[in-house]
Amino acid sequence: MLTYSFENKGSDSLYEYLYKQIKNDILSFNLSSGEKLPSKRALAKHLNISTITVENAYAQLMAEGYIYSVPKSGFYVSDITNRKTESSVPRSKKESKDSSKPTYFADFVNNSTKKENFPFSTWNKLMREIMSDYSEKLMVRSPSSGVIELREAISDYLYQFRGIDVEPEQIIVGAGTEYLYGLIIQLLGRDKVYAIEEPGYQKISKIYDANRISSVHIGLDNSGIDVYALEKSGADILHISPSHHFPTGIVTPISRRYELLSWAAKSQDRYIIEDDYDSEFRLLGKPIPSLQSIDALDKVIYMNTFSKSLTSTIRISYMVLPKTLIQKYNRELNFYSCTVSNFEQYTLAKFIQSGYLEKHINRMRNYYRTQRDTVLGCIKAQPDFSKTTIKEENSGLHFLLEVKTNLSDQILIENAKKNGIHISCLSEYYYHKEYAKEHTIIINYSGLDKEDIPKAISRLYSSLW
Amino acid sequence: MLTYSFENKGSDSLYEYLYKQIKNDILSFNLSSGEKLPSKRALAKHLNISTITVENAYAQLMAEGYIYSVPKSGFYVSDITNRKTESSVPRSKKESKDSSKPTYFADFVNNSTKKENFPFSTWNKLMREIMSDYSEKLMVRSPSSGVIELREAISDYLYQFRGIDVEPEQIIVGAGTEYLYGLIIQLLGRDKVYAIEEPGYQKISKIYDANRISSVHIGLDNSGIDVYALEKSGADILHISPSHHFPTGIVTPISRRYELLSWAAKSQDRYIIEDDYDSEFRLLGKPIPSLQSIDALDKVIYMNTFSKSLTSTIRISYMVLPKTLIQKYNRELNFYSCTVSNFEQYTLAKFIQSGYLEKHINRMRNYYRTQRDTVLGCIKAQPDFSKTTIKEENSGLHFLLEVKTNLSDQILIENAKKNGIHISCLSEYYYHKEYAKEHTIIINYSGLDKEDIPKAISRLYSSLW
Repeated sequence: MLTYSFENKGSDSLYEYLYKQIKNDILSFNLSSGEKLPSKRALAKHLNISTITVENAYAQLMAEGYIYSVPKSGFYVSDITNRKTESSVPRSKKESKDSSKPTYFADFVNNSTKKENFPFSTWNKLMREIMSDYSEKLMVRSPSSGVIELREAISDYLYQFRGIDVEPEQIIVGAGTEYLYGLIIQLLGRDKVYAIEEPGYQKISKIYDANRISSVHIGLDNSGIDVYALEKSGADILHISPSHHFPTGIVTPISRRYELLSWAAKSQDRYIIEDDYDSEFRLLGKPIPSLQSIDALDKVIYMNTFSKSLTSTIRISYMVLPKTLIQKYNRELNFYSCTVSNFEQYTLAKFIQSGYLEKHINRMRNYYRTQRDTVLGCIKAQPDFSKTTIKEENSGLHFLLEVKTNLSDQILIENAKKNGIHISCLSEYYYHKEYAKEHTIIINYSGLDKEDIPKAISRLYSSLW
Repeated sequence: MLTYSFENKGSDSLYEYLYKQIKNDILSFNLSSGEKLPSKRALAKHLNISTITVENAYAQLMAEGYIYSVPKSGFYVSDITNRKTESSVPRSKKESKDSSKPTYFADFVNNSTKKENFPFSTWNKLMREIMSDYSEKLMVRSPSSGVIELREAISDYLYQFRGIDVEPEQIIVGAGTEYLYGLIIQLLGRDKVYAIEEPGYQKISKIYDANRISSVHIGLDNSGIDVYALEKSGADILHISPSHHFPTGIVTPISRRYELLSWAAKSQDRYIIEDDYDSEFRLLGKPIPSLQSIDALDKVIYMNTFSKSLTSTIRISYMVLPKTLIQKYNRELNFYSCTVSNFEQYTLAKFIQSGYLEKHINRMRNYYRTQRDTVLGCIKAQPDFSKTTIKEENSGLHFLLEVKTNLSDQILIENAKKNGIHISCLSEYYYHKEYAKEHTIIINYSGLDKEDIPKAISRLYSSLW
């Protein structure tokens, strides 16, 4: 009969040790496929251990497929020849195969911050200060809506730089706007119909779909959301970026803003989600007042993020709730823990309060202005420039390039890829592809290396016809 | 007529400047309540600006309530005497009134980490190393499921310390388990019925309710979830903490674990969410194998958090998805950005890989063991000890104290509060209060100051009769 000494079991429990021993014997073929194991009672007696111990070991071997039972007969060794013997490979040697992504010479699609553009030394300095000065506070659970220091900093910042006058108590901090959308759905109700921009930032649509929320896609005219279509759609909640629509760049003028507020005023259930994601980077002219700041009826939920102004790899966003909704939040949802760690909340609060954010944004604005001018200069210098039209609204970190070409958008993207250039087309941002405008490329220049721009633009142009 | 010079408008747009000038005149009572404003055309002509500019300024004044319009007559100054002139108060002087919470001498309810128990200097050192060595990587967007370095570290850690053998590709990192629950709902489907433990950790129930998900509450026997009740409930998904149930402390034995796995095996839609939140702190004996590690049919979603082992103010949790579900996640949900910042992901990865987590957990385990022994010692020394019974399973950071008393749970809690002691009772963790067991106090000793323990326990005992 199977005989094991338990002398070397170390810190394993008896059943664990027995399970491992039998498993080893099966894996090394000392016990062969189809061989019958001793009964639980017999083995227990033989090894001088309890039947329960054997039972547990057999149960685990059975659950893992090493043995099987035949009713009224007993336990038998499984055929393990085709089994992958994972556990015999040392863990650390396993290769992790992350899906290999294509690498591009230049990327006009993704925002990424160059490391030179992140204020590492300041951030590091503040982080160290926070660790030594705030050690007590760092261990105290943050309120659901974020630590008060950060909400005060955001409130001050909004007042000074965006003309938005809100109490810190109206602000909810969260790990990214996507997370906050999820909270909004829970707050406003799953029975509401959400209107989103067509074309628009695709993730918004995906999030509503993933949450099985009804959404309608409303077309845009030159001033933004078509109010007539909105009115007809039956939507309750309007989700927009009036300061700088992505990807068209449309800035909704103030008159249209009032029309939208007026739409919201017509029913108690109606709200507008104003995503002000890149208002800091309006490069020419002054920002238009936010919808939130001209909203007299508490109908606007204002959202913004530091992922855009600092780096997308820091996940801190916030929303400003109207007073009625903040009460509802505190009643129904403030059991949720804040999703941003205290370390980063306090560091960011200090970063804002010490004026570093303002400095950083000013620096980045200059940087992006230079990027933009370089990109536009290179485009205008292309021999084929006349076959293209630049569409921009002096705003944000991207613009549109209309191309007179017979190639389909898909071919354009593939051609560019072959030339090492990553582009996306306006048509990809439509939910209803049949309305999509073709031959319009989105030029997001925020992540380009300056010295690569001339080559990137000429490679792009050589992909278009 | 109103006359303003635009010389000092600075960087304001014309309309903004005009709006501010008129607003100032109203706030300083140069324009008085009921006074009629010039028509838009007339004022535009007078100031030599466009009608649109005046229109925008009037529209903003109207939206903010400074003026009102009378159809077919014109615009009039509002009565602003009762208006709160918020904008005249400097922002920073506003007081923020965070709801003041009662402060207790000792808290047996909330987990909080003492600052001495967080490895500040190590964390700080690693953070600085990450900032200087990883600056490039820190700017690259994390995959939806987390950076590969952290997922590898977690995979190795699980293998070494929990006997769980999973690929890094099966791991999803997120800002807290609460956030991950939200992802699971989206992944498994909103039409499923979720079974949760009764009594149980209340937040789980709240999250399902806030998401309008059907849930059923299944009672426990001495081994955990009652399988017969589960079978009858019609639930698809079972959400449990088999290693150490909160708050009863029940450890589900292996035989019951197999029964639960067998329940899950009976339908394709069935899954078990195994929340292993404090398995690191099983203080005596070896941890029982996780459900995940004995699951042969890919039915278990394993979850754990670093908020428990490090500090609750760091928001990093993870889940391990069975292979079929990871494919579904990658197909349907990996558009979501990871909710944890790169800084903290890389710092934690290094913290684990360099062996600091293991060291920290060992240190904390000793610390908690001493805490527990001190608390138990003080309890046993109470003159009224015989009227109470300690119920514990040698596990986790809390145990139960049954009290023979005629006072209601509510009175017990209030009495304790008067003595500066924060307690909660088992009855609060029931969804269906009618089944609640009375007179059982949860003694969570993780956040107590050691020197306060004797006084805390005697104050507690003086509140019970």
